[in-house]
Amino acid sequence: MTPDAARPLTGVRIVEISSFVAVPLAGMTLAQLGAEVIRVDPIGGAADYHRWPLTDSGESIYWAGLNKGKRSVAADMRSPDGQDLVQRLIADSGVLITNVVGRQWHSYEALTRLRPDLIHVEISGRADGGTGVDYTVNAAIGFPMVTGPAELAAPVNHVLPAWDVACGVYAALAVVTALRHRDATGHGQQICIPLENVALATAGNLSFLTEVMINGNARERIGNSVYGQYGQDFTSSDGASFMVVALTGRHFRDLTELTGTTKAVVALADTLGADFSDEGERYRHREALTGVFTEWFSAHTGEEISAALRQTSVLWDRYRSFAETITGESVTTNPMFTTLSQPRIGEYLAPGLPMSIDGSYPPAAPAPALGDDTAAVLGDWLGLSPEEIGALTESGAVA
Amino acid sequence: MTPDAARPLTGVRIVEISSFVAVPLAGMTLAQLGAEVIRVDPIGGAADYHRWPLTDSGESIYWAGLNKGKRSVAADMRSPDGQDLVQRLIADSGVLITNVVGRQWHSYEALTRLRPDLIHVEISGRADGGTGVDYTVNAAIGFPMVTGPAELAAPVNHVLPAWDVACGVYAALAVVTALRHRDATGHGQQICIPLENVALATAGNLSFLTEVMINGNARERIGNSVYGQYGQDFTSSDGASFMVVALTGRHFRDLTELTGTTKAVVALADTLGADFSDEGERYRHREALTGVFTEWFSAHTGEEISAALRQTSVLWDRYRSFAETITGESVTTNPMFTTLSQPRIGEYLAPGLPMSIDGSYPPAAPAPALGDDTAAVLGDWLGLSPEEIGALTESGAVA
Repeated sequence: MTPDAARPLTGVRIVEISSFVAVPLAGMTLAQLGAEVIRVDPIGGAADYHRWPLTDSGESIYWAGLNKGKRSVAADMRSPDGQDLVQRLIADSGVLITNVVGRQWHSYEALTRLRPDLIHVEISGRADGGTGVDYTVNAAIGFPMVTGPAELAAPVNHVLPAWDVACGVYAALAVVTALRHRDATGHGQQICIPLENVALATAGNLSFLTEVMINGNARERIGNSVYGQYGQDFTSSDGASFMVVALTGRHFRDLTELTGTTKAVVALADTLGADFSDEGERYRHREALTGVFTEWFSAHTGEEISAALRQTSVLWDRYRSFAETITGESVTTNPMFTTLSQPRIGEYLAPGLPMSIDGSYPPAAPAPALGDDTAAVLGDWLGLSPEEIGALTESGAVA
Repeated sequence: MTPDAARPLTGVRIVEISSFVAVPLAGMTLAQLGAEVIRVDPIGGAADYHRWPLTDSGESIYWAGLNKGKRSVAADMRSPDGQDLVQRLIADSGVLITNVVGRQWHSYEALTRLRPDLIHVEISGRADGGTGVDYTVNAAIGFPMVTGPAELAAPVNHVLPAWDVACGVYAALAVVTALRHRDATGHGQQICIPLENVALATAGNLSFLTEVMINGNARERIGNSVYGQYGQDFTSSDGASFMVVALTGRHFRDLTELTGTTKAVVALADTLGADFSDEGERYRHREALTGVFTEWFSAHTGEEISAALRQTSVLWDRYRSFAETITGESVTTNPMFTTLSQPRIGEYLAPGLPMSIDGSYPPAAPAPALGDDTAAVLGDWLGLSPEEIGALTESGAVA
């Protein structure tokens, strides 16, 4: 097959043995780039097949959201026959992505005997081999102790499983990088991505760990302020909340002009001996500056504030609930979203891949139901006859 | 050059015109995979060159953290001579990654005239072309309204710029996918990744938007509970906090046995008419369950709790501060971290790429200072003579 621009991974086959977020997201991303991705699950489904949120009739919206555009094979992976079939699918595809660790039969060592140039990407919990999920990894790194209102002492978890998301995209990157390497050299690769290492590398890259090593002091809890810059939330007279960020001198001047506080801010700088042309000084004195700006925000409605901010260079947005977001133009007029008719779930606006390629977004495709493609994949990939597939189904090796 | 396994992008050249997080992270990730990445900055540095945290002598730890392993060229990109040189570098490399939008001279249209098979990856703020940064994009989606203690009404920002991080890894994925596509077809690609779309796609993929579209109701603020599962934080008798997650029936049984509450939990199920073999039921009745478990946690020290949890299948970790994390084994004995001697900053444990390839982690390399490689790159890539480079420096086109 010749890859086309919008589906550059056309012709690539990938087997996924997974549950939860990171590996399913990796597989979905690769499918959206054109790969044929087979998610292989135990008969009855993996631990995420009934994960909340559910529809009124008990179908998992969650599962459908992270498996769009894949094909589904269900096999009894505890039986020798089931393991053998899945091994043959992996050997045929040449790529396995998995977060099911510690299974000898689909280890790199076992599988490279069948397919020497295999690409084997395994996501684990902790770097030392221990188990971990997003919420426990996050607890162990440090972010929950600096999230939330400054007066809090207790940890605040993130709601977005940010480490799973980043880890899933790293896994997709690992697969494509290894595919390109194999194209050039003929060699496969064994890639391991501990979720904990994604979190630790990010915390290091973004200085949260490094500043303690170098300066000896750690980030404090600063509420909704942006560290090292002037960024703050404000509330309007009618209760709308805004996030406002001034990264540059121009942003900051626009903010003082908008709020009619240019002279007051100059006077404040004199009083404090501060130089507000320096971003660090704006950060150090953020509480005083916020005091000066707050009056304007609390004297105007959300509509007035939005209209006024729109005329400036200031970076801002209004805080929205998820319910508001889905009715807003960022969703309803966004070419990344297309109407998806998802069997068992219904019709909804589904996001495709968040990148446009040569001007168009690879759109979303429906998720399969468990085992939807078992017979077709065993026939197409392994050349099994309907009789052979029937016998395997009868014996309980597949479903 | 023949790519080796641990540096699969060896031989790839990339020009980066960037600031802040997403594109610098993309460039650094590609450099850690073996690419030669030239970050081109304005003379004096881009808006992130002095970003906090700083060392005592005023060097940006932040900038050093996100530009490891790159080379640095400084050019006057407002001057025709500077623009011409940078265009020639991009044409030579064949890959541009940038978040500096709206500059005609490095647009896809302008650059493909010089290099028809260019790979051009641009990260913008909002999908509609408006500006946005992580903290404003996050405000507009919905997560801050469901983060933090249930009794709060105000938004709670994340501290981790999660959208920037995901966007940066998507950008690296876009580059490698396009490189493989170009290898196969000879064609370049134009890729656009609005930061807002990374956030919206993720919120959709993870059901936060979809459940409102399908079920009509949105996620509530549930503090540190894990939605749809039993996951909760607890505090020990000596004030240590723990995150505890029971995804499976086995995890949950282990948790009741550990806390000596197996009989109490059975009695609670009878009283409530609940079936705790169902993860949704465990979630619905999480407050009652937490009440039952809390006594054991508050009667034991952090040490005792850690020792006991270690004997079970339960997913858990102790909440740590960044200062605790850097002295723990997850950093000090982790092969992803190596001692980096970073000019101007000092010696510290720096993370490499968070994936091991064939058993080893691509290690961290120092970040350059601004303009460190200007002369070498103009000489090596464009074949300029020392005299020509001297004249360009003299005229202020480069530094």
